[in-house]
Amino acid sequence: MSRGLRVWQDMEKEQETLRAWKDRVARELDRVVAFWLDHSHDQEQGCAPCPSGGLGLGSSLLWSPRTSLWAGCHLWGAASAPIPLHPPTPDLANSANASVSHRGFFTCLGRDGQVYDDLKYVWLQGRQVWMYCRLYRQFERFRRPELLNAAKAGGEFLLRYAQVAPPAKKCAFVLTRDGRPVKVQRTIFSECFYTMAMNELWRVTGDARYQNEAMEMMDQIVSWVREDPSGLGRPQLPGAPASESMAVPMMLLNLVEQLGEADEELAGISAELGDWCAQRILQHVQRGGQAVLENVSEDGEELSGCLGRHQNPGHALEAGWFLLRYAIQRGDAKLRAHVIDKFLLLPFHSGWDPEHGGLFYFQDADGLCPTQLEWAMKLWWPHSEAMIAFLMGYSETGDPALLRIFYQVAEYTFHRFRDPEYGEWFGYLNRDGKVALTIKGGPFKGCFHVPRCLAMCEEMLNNLLSRLAPASALSTRSPPAGPARPGAE
Amino acid sequence: MSRGLRVWQDMEKEQETLRAWKDRVARELDRVVAFWLDHSHDQEQGCAPCPSGGLGLGSSLLWSPRTSLWAGCHLWGAASAPIPLHPPTPDLANSANASVSHRGFFTCLGRDGQVYDDLKYVWLQGRQVWMYCRLYRQFERFRRPELLNAAKAGGEFLLRYAQVAPPAKKCAFVLTRDGRPVKVQRTIFSECFYTMAMNELWRVTGDARYQNEAMEMMDQIVSWVREDPSGLGRPQLPGAPASESMAVPMMLLNLVEQLGEADEELAGISAELGDWCAQRILQHVQRGGQAVLENVSEDGEELSGCLGRHQNPGHALEAGWFLLRYAIQRGDAKLRAHVIDKFLLLPFHSGWDPEHGGLFYFQDADGLCPTQLEWAMKLWWPHSEAMIAFLMGYSETGDPALLRIFYQVAEYTFHRFRDPEYGEWFGYLNRDGKVALTIKGGPFKGCFHVPRCLAMCEEMLNNLLSRLAPASALSTRSPPAGPARPGAE
Repeated sequence: MSRGLRVWQDMEKEQETLRAWKDRVARELDRVVAFWLDHSHDQEQGCAPCPSGGLGLGSSLLWSPRTSLWAGCHLWGAASAPIPLHPPTPDLANSANASVSHRGFFTCLGRDGQVYDDLKYVWLQGRQVWMYCRLYRQFERFRRPELLNAAKAGGEFLLRYAQVAPPAKKCAFVLTRDGRPVKVQRTIFSECFYTMAMNELWRVTGDARYQNEAMEMMDQIVSWVREDPSGLGRPQLPGAPASESMAVPMMLLNLVEQLGEADEELAGISAELGDWCAQRILQHVQRGGQAVLENVSEDGEELSGCLGRHQNPGHALEAGWFLLRYAIQRGDAKLRAHVIDKFLLLPFHSGWDPEHGGLFYFQDADGLCPTQLEWAMKLWWPHSEAMIAFLMGYSETGDPALLRIFYQVAEYTFHRFRDPEYGEWFGYLNRDGKVALTIKGGPFKGCFHVPRCLAMCEEMLNNLLSRLAPASALSTRSPPAGPARPGAE
Repeated sequence: MSRGLRVWQDMEKEQETLRAWKDRVARELDRVVAFWLDHSHDQEQGCAPCPSGGLGLGSSLLWSPRTSLWAGCHLWGAASAPIPLHPPTPDLANSANASVSHRGFFTCLGRDGQVYDDLKYVWLQGRQVWMYCRLYRQFERFRRPELLNAAKAGGEFLLRYAQVAPPAKKCAFVLTRDGRPVKVQRTIFSECFYTMAMNELWRVTGDARYQNEAMEMMDQIVSWVREDPSGLGRPQLPGAPASESMAVPMMLLNLVEQLGEADEELAGISAELGDWCAQRILQHVQRGGQAVLENVSEDGEELSGCLGRHQNPGHALEAGWFLLRYAIQRGDAKLRAHVIDKFLLLPFHSGWDPEHGGLFYFQDADGLCPTQLEWAMKLWWPHSEAMIAFLMGYSETGDPALLRIFYQVAEYTFHRFRDPEYGEWFGYLNRDGKVALTIKGGPFKGCFHVPRCLAMCEEMLNNLLSRLAPASALSTRSPPAGPARPGAE
């Protein structure tokens, strides 16, 4: 056999594997999206949790424009709601949007999709709005009214209820089914997911209200992070070290990329912010390049104790693909290599469990036992992030070592997390890979990491196949849908 | 063999088993106390964590009465301490107490006792002071200066540093090694353990300062719980249900019993408070007596969602022995039977893992999957509390079914949690009983549940043996030390 033939056969084999993964990923994305469409939409119009103590899903509460009263829940009179319910927004009740019959999403879903709690977590509301819009915008097969209408209803729910005391921008962490705040976190993350949702909603609807909201909230977030955090409500205590969690610049960098997409003017304005975020994230590489630490001092030094030694391999990998995108956009090959080395390979090699496989949730940089009870569990999202990171790394460099790691992580992930019976993925495995929690959604798991991973991987695999394959090999498949333009609907 | 002989032989056998457990428990108590004496005492005088990023244990910082300055830490000048350090209390520096060379306790201890973080958690400082004093007061063999001096130094550390902004009584949750507040919880628990420590310190030293502190803090706690919680700093949010965690009346009942011990006047004054606590705890028996729920509404109804269905078998068992003591003191046999039924047998039977043994950490009253990642883990403290509860139940009723459960729990606990190599107990096992975290102490595990369980079990086993045994059988053993009087030292 000639060398040329062998090379051709190897290429053919690689394409086969990539194509098989592309098909597997695309089918899985369909199943996952179907799970959320089937189970997570609140079809009632703002019914409060039934005061009888049940989930209240069986009783509906409808706004009567005639009497300006909520009516329909037989137990409502007995409820001790500390504030009166708001009437629905005019556009929901009276305009073309009146066809939208659900508001926000249930995310506390059991294995089979059953709602086990009707609380609405703001992170997850924002993430699901973002995800539906992104799918609608980038995939022909998801350009369906049910996704768009659900995203708009979720967006309206956020607009009306997320901010605890408007005009102050601080958002709740969790709301009751009908939008009353239950808990407020003293961090920026509810607001970040709110911003992502609003910007993406604007991109699919063209409605300037959404973009104005996104830009105003972004200004507030940047001000909290870079100027004055006092509005977050965290007390300044003399013993608390001035520290930075990597999550903050990481999340901000993601927002810079979100808001700057296909908007050269905005991308230019926010370039300085993007550079700042990248520099701050890079400061978390410590110990002479041998460890990514989740928390460092304000001036980029290692902190003492458990806080300083804390590592979160999934976060490092997620920050890795945010930084990779940043390096690619700037054409910075040196940074790209550094990011692959420090934010992909390093956390993967130190975070992968040599005994049972899978990525540890938390680690201690000195190899001591972490104090978090769940440190050795395997969570779905670090694995989703790792799949994105390594496939992106391979797409950009062609380094087969990165592709091998993608396959290794993807095999583990599909084998362990995926639920072939009821759809979606389990979120929480024991160290040995057995399912520890059977829930499909909860306070932190919603319609986000799994479909984002699958959608991005499908797109990257498609692009790889387009580049690698002879024209004929892909001709029988539909090409990936191009991004829609803002206001294209 | 005559019936009389058989009964005598059965009694003899039961005594043998009880005696074996008493010896096992007493030996284990010695080992556990030795672990904390060996590893947890901060021998330096208030050295701040070394700004170099290490634990700072190797550098000492000494108060110089001559220059009125802290000196000795070569890196101190580089530290960015937001507030100046306080000088030591006069009695520590100048009085008879100057011999006390340590201040507060390290509780972040690895498997072998090594300090892996020097933060000082206020719950655990208070608990260790309480534990040392209680051992000193009730056991002849622990009436040793090293326990008393360490307890006093811990008490002085709390007096000086626990309150975040005196004269306000709110205490920190965690302090730096030198006493600067790092975090404040918006609950009453730091203050409760502070009160326990102060009252017990007064009982062994007779120093009225400690008792005044205990009484003032108790007044503040009761006021927060029964009158106005605003000082705790929790925002009142319209969507948050007015709920009661069982931990609150449970903790208060424990304090009522602590403060009222051998003090008839105080016991009389606080009788109403004790009754209130007991009634509030009893409200957590829900669903027609079929479940103890951790959270109920202010008026004792089940709450909706996960919050309402949440169960914590260890808490129910701990509340069980607090209530059992309460019922015994009041001579209320009907309540005693109710408590054994609902707070001992019910949580044990529903909370014991039929597959692997051990008590689940959390459960959902509908049998759904809890959302807490650690729900199926086996923690040390529910098992310690179960040992106390069932041995107390048996001591009071003579019901052999309760003794059998004590043996079952104690066997599991000694087999799984005890570390024969380095002493003390592991705190956190996976569902299958394997050690998940090798630490012996951390933010929530200190010198408390294990020695309290062992000390109480030793005392109860001694009393049982005294009651059951022919006089000769115990004559070769030393009787348990009687409680010391306040100010007896």
